[in-house]
Amino acid sequence: MKRASTLALAALSLAYGPAALRAQPHPAQTQAVAARLRDSALRSDRAFELVEQLTTRFGPRPAGSPAERAAADWIAATLLADGFSSVRIERFPLKVWTRRAESCKVIWPSEQPLAVTMLGGSPSTPPGGVEGEIVRFSSLEALAAAAPEILQGRIVFLDYVMPAMQSGLGYALATAGRSQGPGLARRGGALAFVMRSAGTARDREPHTGLTAYQGAWAPLPSFALSPEDAEQLARLLALGPTRIRLEGSAVIRDGHSQNVIAEIPGATAGREIVLLGAHLDSWDLGTGAQDDAAGVGVVVAAAQLLRDTGIRPRRTVRLVLFGAEEPSQPEAPGGLYGAHDYARRNASAAGDHVIASESDLGSGRIFGLDLPPAAASSGFASEAASLLLPLGILVDPELPPHGGADMLPMQAAGVPVFLLKQDASRYFDVHHSAADTLGTVSAADLRQNVAAWAALIWLVANSEATFR
Amino acid sequence: MKRASTLALAALSLAYGPAALRAQPHPAQTQAVAARLRDSALRSDRAFELVEQLTTRFGPRPAGSPAERAAADWIAATLLADGFSSVRIERFPLKVWTRRAESCKVIWPSEQPLAVTMLGGSPSTPPGGVEGEIVRFSSLEALAAAAPEILQGRIVFLDYVMPAMQSGLGYALATAGRSQGPGLARRGGALAFVMRSAGTARDREPHTGLTAYQGAWAPLPSFALSPEDAEQLARLLALGPTRIRLEGSAVIRDGHSQNVIAEIPGATAGREIVLLGAHLDSWDLGTGAQDDAAGVGVVVAAAQLLRDTGIRPRRTVRLVLFGAEEPSQPEAPGGLYGAHDYARRNASAAGDHVIASESDLGSGRIFGLDLPPAAASSGFASEAASLLLPLGILVDPELPPHGGADMLPMQAAGVPVFLLKQDASRYFDVHHSAADTLGTVSAADLRQNVAAWAALIWLVANSEATFR
Repeated sequence: MKRASTLALAALSLAYGPAALRAQPHPAQTQAVAARLRDSALRSDRAFELVEQLTTRFGPRPAGSPAERAAADWIAATLLADGFSSVRIERFPLKVWTRRAESCKVIWPSEQPLAVTMLGGSPSTPPGGVEGEIVRFSSLEALAAAAPEILQGRIVFLDYVMPAMQSGLGYALATAGRSQGPGLARRGGALAFVMRSAGTARDREPHTGLTAYQGAWAPLPSFALSPEDAEQLARLLALGPTRIRLEGSAVIRDGHSQNVIAEIPGATAGREIVLLGAHLDSWDLGTGAQDDAAGVGVVVAAAQLLRDTGIRPRRTVRLVLFGAEEPSQPEAPGGLYGAHDYARRNASAAGDHVIASESDLGSGRIFGLDLPPAAASSGFASEAASLLLPLGILVDPELPPHGGADMLPMQAAGVPVFLLKQDASRYFDVHHSAADTLGTVSAADLRQNVAAWAALIWLVANSEATFR
Repeated sequence: MKRASTLALAALSLAYGPAALRAQPHPAQTQAVAARLRDSALRSDRAFELVEQLTTRFGPRPAGSPAERAAADWIAATLLADGFSSVRIERFPLKVWTRRAESCKVIWPSEQPLAVTMLGGSPSTPPGGVEGEIVRFSSLEALAAAAPEILQGRIVFLDYVMPAMQSGLGYALATAGRSQGPGLARRGGALAFVMRSAGTARDREPHTGLTAYQGAWAPLPSFALSPEDAEQLARLLALGPTRIRLEGSAVIRDGHSQNVIAEIPGATAGREIVLLGAHLDSWDLGTGAQDDAAGVGVVVAAAQLLRDTGIRPRRTVRLVLFGAEEPSQPEAPGGLYGAHDYARRNASAAGDHVIASESDLGSGRIFGLDLPPAAASSGFASEAASLLLPLGILVDPELPPHGGADMLPMQAAGVPVFLLKQDASRYFDVHHSAADTLGTVSAADLRQNVAAWAALIWLVANSEATFR
């Protein structure tokens, strides 16, 4: 695929001259170039190659880890070598939570191990672990309504089953349990909190993720069972009282993470910024191939294709590869350390950001585009629709868009966002678990993603639409 | 499903009178009863319920463990309550290998964890583990041909990719690597042996299994990587020299395992034994739902259906649930402690065993029947063929049958075997790994298995065919 891609790009070069940046083409050419970018992307495996490099060279890239930093250095060097402008690394401090060891064992009615992982931010248990009888709830509401004496001295088991959905919407309820469950359990005097993983596969892999905090740590030792182990525990409970022992240890230290930024400077409206993002950090269990090396691969490959045209777009295209999207602390609830750092540094420049979006839902195919309400019925929307239809993407003007988690701080500052909606049916099978590795990434789906991003970003960057 | 099954059995009782055992029916009825057993089995979830009970109550059941013993006691009590005759537990001594802890980490070019498990019988590494540069071989032949200086002081990585096949045949080559690889690596002075798991999924679960022995232990610290981690290691090697650290600890102690035996006594040829088997032990990583709770569920449910007819078959039907099929030691190479114990105790009665077979390839649907050459073109074969065709099973007279691993010692003593051939396309996705749990078992496929076993065993037990 590498050879086909090189040939395609050579053809593009031939059509538009050598790769030195030239002035913006006539507006009538914009649509034609966007279509050509789209079709070139479908013949290139650059995104997959980037995902392979990131996940192989650096493995898991937890926020604040040496691996996350090495990955940032490497991708910055790549972008510099590719001829991007203003390539820079912006460092910021954070609290680094690091998992040491964890285990779970049924003690009664029979001894057997269960596959478990600590939620991010969980405090350690005492050495030797905590042991207690299980009290099970099938929803957060039932846990919230429980009398304290039912929880006192027990281990709370939140057994919410997350449905697989194309939109990924099932995740919202599961994360509500993950963030609020430990606090509700502690309120009643529970010893520990364990939940069925926020995941949709039926296997032995537990899924981690952030919870809510009281001070530096989560309020209780907090764990997630694999879906299969949660079902085993529920079956044991159906036979009678069940006791388990949970053990986990983790440390928190001060550290740093960083955002990597690179640009294609705009020709005639260079002050106006079109922002495309993804995040470099991952959870520690897998290699973060879906979350979010895939997103990094897609937006970097799309930006490379734009750069390869040798034509300067009207507006500046800015690529931001965020650090520390995943972990949460009291000073950054909901995670997004890197996004908050970017928003702080760009507080006075929010008005220069024309539109922004992030690729952060894995490698699943894109099936829809949400545009800001102001653009939904504009000429821009119909241009985008005709460009994206051949990729199987419908423009949906119904919903106010969500631009990806790392866009939330800039969105709060008034920056419009769009969303290329991906099929998340299988994303939560592996998300935040050890199963999030290269083997689950489809090169063909990545090509379709890059095609949509490259075409759409070209269109936006050469448009005069304001989206506000 | 329970209610439907009870109704079906009530109808069967009505047709044949109360459940007290009566004399053998007229031979002309044999085929009709067999067909009725087959159709009742398709409406019953007894086998699945047994698999659920075994895997939930006792979890993993390693040979010689308290869990294996508790499972044996429980199933013996169940068979006794069901009215089987001569229910007994036959205990035997064995060497019990127990895994303590294990880990694998890439040290160079970057630090990252790899998912690994020790092969059964592996000795411990020194505390802190062994660290060395990887030398990779894609086949056992290449490893066997390697000059010793290439292996000296290195860690041997056998990267054989096992294909998924309906017959399960890909496993044979993978086990050749597993059993001979460690010895070949040691011969060249390697520090340790690590292989790509003998498995067909592409996930993070490593697969354990037995290897060959020198004295009480395997010849070298021996490990298996998950398929995905083996691919990660191969990708790292493609970038340049790669060092890993392997750490593992295990102990060996003297212990006991046991076979559980139960019978339906034959009416007029009670000395003649039709043997059906499965094994109660499992590896320690999963709950052994496929290997071999599924087989136990199938043969016990089939025997229960026969017992429920209230009609005594001509010959004795003997159920043997073997202990300690999996582990291997110098005195029982290839494992099969329980099968060897049974063969020893029945050395003088081998001639009384008419035919024997084991269900030990998980819950996959049955697609064929292999009969002993003597029966292949007999009237028996055509009766069996017409009974099994509605289940989608073809009688294949081409191949000399393999009756299941636990039948090998009796087969060596001259006992004919048959094989109900199961679709193993997905069996080795989970076999010997933590993923071998109830969630992978199809209740519908188990019903088809029970239908075939019940009908065929009824036919054999009421036949006069000798199969020799």
